[in-house]
Amino acid sequence: MTSQKNSDIILLSHGDGGLLTHQLLEKYFLPCFNNTLLEGLTDAASFPVRQGKMAITTDSFVVDPIFFPGGDIGKLAVCGTVNDLAVSGAKPLYLTASFIIEEGFPIADLERIIGSMARACKEADVTIVAGDTKVVGRTQADKIFITTAGIGYMLPEADLGYNRIVPGDNVIVNGPMGNHGLSVLLERNSFSFDTKILSDCAPLNVLTEGLIKRFKGIKFMRDLTRGGLATCVKEIALSAGVDIRLNDSNIPIDDEVRGITETLGLDPLYLANEGKFLIITNGEETGSILEYLKEDLSAQKSNIIGHIEEGKGNVYLKTALGGTRRLTMLSGAPLPRIC
Amino acid sequence: MTSQKNSDIILLSHGDGGLLTHQLLEKYFLPCFNNTLLEGLTDAASFPVRQGKMAITTDSFVVDPIFFPGGDIGKLAVCGTVNDLAVSGAKPLYLTASFIIEEGFPIADLERIIGSMARACKEADVTIVAGDTKVVGRTQADKIFITTAGIGYMLPEADLGYNRIVPGDNVIVNGPMGNHGLSVLLERNSFSFDTKILSDCAPLNVLTEGLIKRFKGIKFMRDLTRGGLATCVKEIALSAGVDIRLNDSNIPIDDEVRGITETLGLDPLYLANEGKFLIITNGEETGSILEYLKEDLSAQKSNIIGHIEEGKGNVYLKTALGGTRRLTMLSGAPLPRIC
Repeated sequence: MTSQKNSDIILLSHGDGGLLTHQLLEKYFLPCFNNTLLEGLTDAASFPVRQGKMAITTDSFVVDPIFFPGGDIGKLAVCGTVNDLAVSGAKPLYLTASFIIEEGFPIADLERIIGSMARACKEADVTIVAGDTKVVGRTQADKIFITTAGIGYMLPEADLGYNRIVPGDNVIVNGPMGNHGLSVLLERNSFSFDTKILSDCAPLNVLTEGLIKRFKGIKFMRDLTRGGLATCVKEIALSAGVDIRLNDSNIPIDDEVRGITETLGLDPLYLANEGKFLIITNGEETGSILEYLKEDLSAQKSNIIGHIEEGKGNVYLKTALGGTRRLTMLSGAPLPRIC
Repeated sequence: MTSQKNSDIILLSHGDGGLLTHQLLEKYFLPCFNNTLLEGLTDAASFPVRQGKMAITTDSFVVDPIFFPGGDIGKLAVCGTVNDLAVSGAKPLYLTASFIIEEGFPIADLERIIGSMARACKEADVTIVAGDTKVVGRTQADKIFITTAGIGYMLPEADLGYNRIVPGDNVIVNGPMGNHGLSVLLERNSFSFDTKILSDCAPLNVLTEGLIKRFKGIKFMRDLTRGGLATCVKEIALSAGVDIRLNDSNIPIDDEVRGITETLGLDPLYLANEGKFLIITNGEETGSILEYLKEDLSAQKSNIIGHIEEGKGNVYLKTALGGTRRLTMLSGAPLPRIC
């Protein structure tokens, strides 16, 4: 017999594949991730496919703390994988979710996380079709880690790749930088700032699908997660064999984020975002794309932040004071467990 | 500058999405998981699909210790997911692999694990097409956890499901029970047994594909991992709404495994296997299936271990002494981190 206390927390037995594993599945996971593909409860879910091209991706989420303003590890695990597919030009369809849980983790927290995942799935119109739960002993993992994988069809209209990026193309972002990273950092440490920064964690697939279907000029997209805008732009410059010039004054950053990052000595261009992406587009369609983005409530602060030049992988930032700074990949002081 | 020591271990910066993350990818992961789909290094891998039915699955691997006789966490992470697809009637095709690594983990161990994954992929004829690496602080995870997801085409000949299981069907296993679980337990604790038990960890997809293509009488397959044979058979009995009678004398168990489990008070029917599966088949084809299995070097100890009867989910084991024992799902003393 388990005591009242034991019934409120995750036990090692919840992960041994036996009776408690089944009860956990039936009581918590299945009602939330309710779908016919999961009902068989066999080793794999199956689904019909039509001829075409599919995309697949995976990410592990180890964010600390697991709950933060604007989201939690569950919402992040769904949005992160959905967004990797979305910016690759795919329409996300099915996810898998695998949980590694520390013994003693409150079942109420697990319920909250699962509920949050279910809501994010609904918003992104994706279904979790397979999963796994492992439990490790106390101090062998920090609370809970979630790994999601996702697949979807490549949109036939999508034609994205480093090879399409040429001098004269423009760089657009869909909103202000740094909110997710700062939100998590502030929640983790006890600073005494008055304002609460919300994570921007959100699925991007509706927006990216709309863009790809409308604009042939979209040549490349990338979500601006770990390493932030700066690391991402540097990667693109290197991979495409071009230089990229950004204009700091045009990069949207919320006043509160700018203020707090200045106080803390952080650079918002290196902070992770979880609902932001960049678009590289040809010159002609730049205006229409920006207009389309701004019609979306979530992307009203979209802006053209730079352009592509001939070069060999350098990224230059024109600062507000008129100087020029060279951007490199994030290196040195790491921001661990930001996603 | 990092000291010599730092260059030998995983640092938090290896997981921040910046420079060291890229170096880790380029130096260790890409050479081992070398394939054209990974080369783009973008957010998702894409691949062509033809009309049909696909299967998807995922598992997290947290085995302790990470190296054990007959395998390691990397081999396990590939075989486990390959086998979930295989026993579902699918031909595994692509895997994703996501790593959660504790700061300070030796890079030499990571190399060894990646090499082992690459070899298992080759044996199973699957490709790792997408991945992720996160690093958490010391004591925030126990060394390394790996989550794999896998997809493959359902074999058109496969017709597997609880609904096909009826009284008169037989239960076959492809070899001796308990070797993986016992191997890990012995490696974890310091017992003074003379013999070394090898894990049976191996990909099953070549064998299952051969079976499905040859025999229409195969109604259900399941790999016998967490919870072991007993838990698995109990699940099947409940889900199919039948009783299952097993004959202990016919269940293959290696002498050494039997001896050591008796000494330790463990039941090999509840120990995890990582290269064993059961088949439920109609009466007529049972003999031919057994013959086919025994032709395979890895399955020479295959045997018919029981049969299906009308009932309501009970599992009965006829013991060697002539009595009958009722089997239930694993519950109570858990065997954590066995896979």
